[in-house]
Amino acid sequence: MSAYTTMTREELLAEKTALQERYDAYKAMGLKLDMSRGKPGKDQLDLSMALLDDTDYVEDGIDLRNYGILDGIPSCKKLFADLLEVEPENILLGPNASLSLMFDYIAQCYSHGVCGSTPWSKLPKVKFICPVPGYDRHFTILEYFNIEMISVPMTMEGPDMDAVEALIQDESVKGMFCVPKYSNPQGITYSDAVVTRIGSMKPAAKDFRIIWDNAYCIHEIYDEGDRLLDIFDVLPLHGNDDMVIEVCSTSKMTFPGAGISALAASERNIADIKKRLNCQTISYDKMNQHRHVRFFKDVEGIKAHMKKHAAILRPKFEMVLEHLENELGGKEIASWIKPRGGYFISLDVMNGCAKRTGELCKEAGVTLTTVGATYPYGLDPNDSNIRIAPSLPPVAELDLAAQILCVSVKLACIEKLLGEQTA
Amino acid sequence: MSAYTTMTREELLAEKTALQERYDAYKAMGLKLDMSRGKPGKDQLDLSMALLDDTDYVEDGIDLRNYGILDGIPSCKKLFADLLEVEPENILLGPNASLSLMFDYIAQCYSHGVCGSTPWSKLPKVKFICPVPGYDRHFTILEYFNIEMISVPMTMEGPDMDAVEALIQDESVKGMFCVPKYSNPQGITYSDAVVTRIGSMKPAAKDFRIIWDNAYCIHEIYDEGDRLLDIFDVLPLHGNDDMVIEVCSTSKMTFPGAGISALAASERNIADIKKRLNCQTISYDKMNQHRHVRFFKDVEGIKAHMKKHAAILRPKFEMVLEHLENELGGKEIASWIKPRGGYFISLDVMNGCAKRTGELCKEAGVTLTTVGATYPYGLDPNDSNIRIAPSLPPVAELDLAAQILCVSVKLACIEKLLGEQTA
Repeated sequence: MSAYTTMTREELLAEKTALQERYDAYKAMGLKLDMSRGKPGKDQLDLSMALLDDTDYVEDGIDLRNYGILDGIPSCKKLFADLLEVEPENILLGPNASLSLMFDYIAQCYSHGVCGSTPWSKLPKVKFICPVPGYDRHFTILEYFNIEMISVPMTMEGPDMDAVEALIQDESVKGMFCVPKYSNPQGITYSDAVVTRIGSMKPAAKDFRIIWDNAYCIHEIYDEGDRLLDIFDVLPLHGNDDMVIEVCSTSKMTFPGAGISALAASERNIADIKKRLNCQTISYDKMNQHRHVRFFKDVEGIKAHMKKHAAILRPKFEMVLEHLENELGGKEIASWIKPRGGYFISLDVMNGCAKRTGELCKEAGVTLTTVGATYPYGLDPNDSNIRIAPSLPPVAELDLAAQILCVSVKLACIEKLLGEQTA
Repeated sequence: MSAYTTMTREELLAEKTALQERYDAYKAMGLKLDMSRGKPGKDQLDLSMALLDDTDYVEDGIDLRNYGILDGIPSCKKLFADLLEVEPENILLGPNASLSLMFDYIAQCYSHGVCGSTPWSKLPKVKFICPVPGYDRHFTILEYFNIEMISVPMTMEGPDMDAVEALIQDESVKGMFCVPKYSNPQGITYSDAVVTRIGSMKPAAKDFRIIWDNAYCIHEIYDEGDRLLDIFDVLPLHGNDDMVIEVCSTSKMTFPGAGISALAASERNIADIKKRLNCQTISYDKMNQHRHVRFFKDVEGIKAHMKKHAAILRPKFEMVLEHLENELGGKEIASWIKPRGGYFISLDVMNGCAKRTGELCKEAGVTLTTVGATYPYGLDPNDSNIRIAPSLPPVAELDLAAQILCVSVKLACIEKLLGEQTA
């Protein structure tokens, strides 16, 4: 297989004809395959049905079916404290999704500021650092609150810290979103050096907050997972105890939308958040918290459960990666990272070819994450990044979808090399 | 039983001595009784345990255990649409509590305005009308967002509409909180005339919104409940289609904190709210929505279920009312309303005696709702209103608690009449 970039025009045209034939055959199958979102597959959801068998909702003599307990039941706070390696007093249990925890926290900063600082709504300009490619729903929250997003490129070790450290000299830069383990979409785990640099930053803004979205904290695909340095061990060494708000959830452990979320932060931040929470709710779903404790028992229980997820996900990731290697390897038109956990594979194609790849996939019945969504404002400056979500389709469908994706990438890149693209 | 107000000093002193003896006897019992919050009793919670038997979470071929369906599953939207007598497209299903629906809506008005209006955070002053006595958690939301609360007295038909109609001439008055059926705490259901006047108002503020907290929409205590005129029938007659945001929940039907909430509004308001919701969450708990549909089946199912609650609550309400009548009737020191539904009995004692009553109760082991909480900023200008929540204590405990309350009221009023109060 030779590189497209070194082929003659005639060779490219011949390759294109062969690919077009394959593409048309796929298209004729009238498929409807979805690789757009990080949805668990049905077999993954089936793993947690025993969660629902809980029938007794009393803890320490308290009837969990009734009102009360704002920050979550003690047993479940302990479970998440153990998972995130913090103390229970640093844990707040949240609603059914960590997305709401993050949205509500930014909303709170917007209307009330951070631990007594000026509300961000009262400032002429508020900016956030966004490592790219990143998670579209983080960007949506920031855009909603009119917070200017500044992209910082990801490296194989995490965000480009030289760029981050330069940006935080600006007092209007108020924070940063991070997915530190198995980042969305690249599956990169921040290195110890990067976590240490993040934890020791000295931002000009005293109300600077890092949203540490540890969505894939225990979502390994292989027996030996990546190890993330605990940022809460770094922060106190630099007087940064209050700089990080960590969140996670059981969305991809049990049931997305019917799980529970948790937030870990300093006691000062927890108190600041509780002031709002005390106006917003009486409690989140304690019965569901109890169900999760009964089901998992402890962190070892979570780990054992996640191994079952891994057994289902691993072949899916490997199948997609194999197709990428076989079809795109050595062509010099695409690169990708092999993740050891998380929910995505990030594929970078030749500049200017991602959108066209998405169109070709769509016409052949394969839905990808909207191309561009991995960048703030939906604008990928190079038009090169594609997020692949292999979890939802059954293996047989995924096999087809991955092939269609590869053929689409190749067609798009040949069009580009031949100067055929209209845009 | 003669009126305290016409007794001589000697008669009052004799009465006080007798009461003090009873009070000391109660105090010596070392009780711990709670009439502070509208918590259902254990026997009420037991009514809904079959809700948890649901094992199959598929609807119209969609796996409800996975991500998706922002505004709620169709079957559950229909259930609430039927309950609130609107169309399913006017329904949004929410999180585990309508309190969060209300908080989040006011937060949205604060940060983004109402259907494109200026965000309330950008205005020099925003005011809200609060019928009093009212629900403390409404007041807490408004106070959090620095919205000035203007009290309007309740009449037996609802808020004093002359006062309301005068206030809405002020463009900075942006809305009103109402509990239109079995109001909290008085249990008053707004009359047709009041609902009609509310629905036909012409506020100066184009972004005026009424939060119609129909928390007790189907919470009758007697077979024949109060009938509330449907405000959504009134609004269109006056071009006010967008003026009302209605909320309700299953908190006092199934499990408080583990139920579901719903919001009913015009399609324009629903679209406005969905813009925010789309950034805040992927969906609320669809599995719980499904459980509620399976459990209730339809509105008739809800009605039948609520009759079981009524059978438990009715004797509790009647017991408290009987004690009030027997102990306080004819004394000219207190008045109360006999509600036909809801969760509270509102007791008005002689001016300046409510706080002292609360203190006496507390010393004798009976917790009441914090006195003053039924008014904005916790300030009852007359220091006269006490909210009684009879639902939680078992009947035998309630019997004692009600007696202690009555004795405390009498002692507090005698102290006042004798000029003994220190404050």
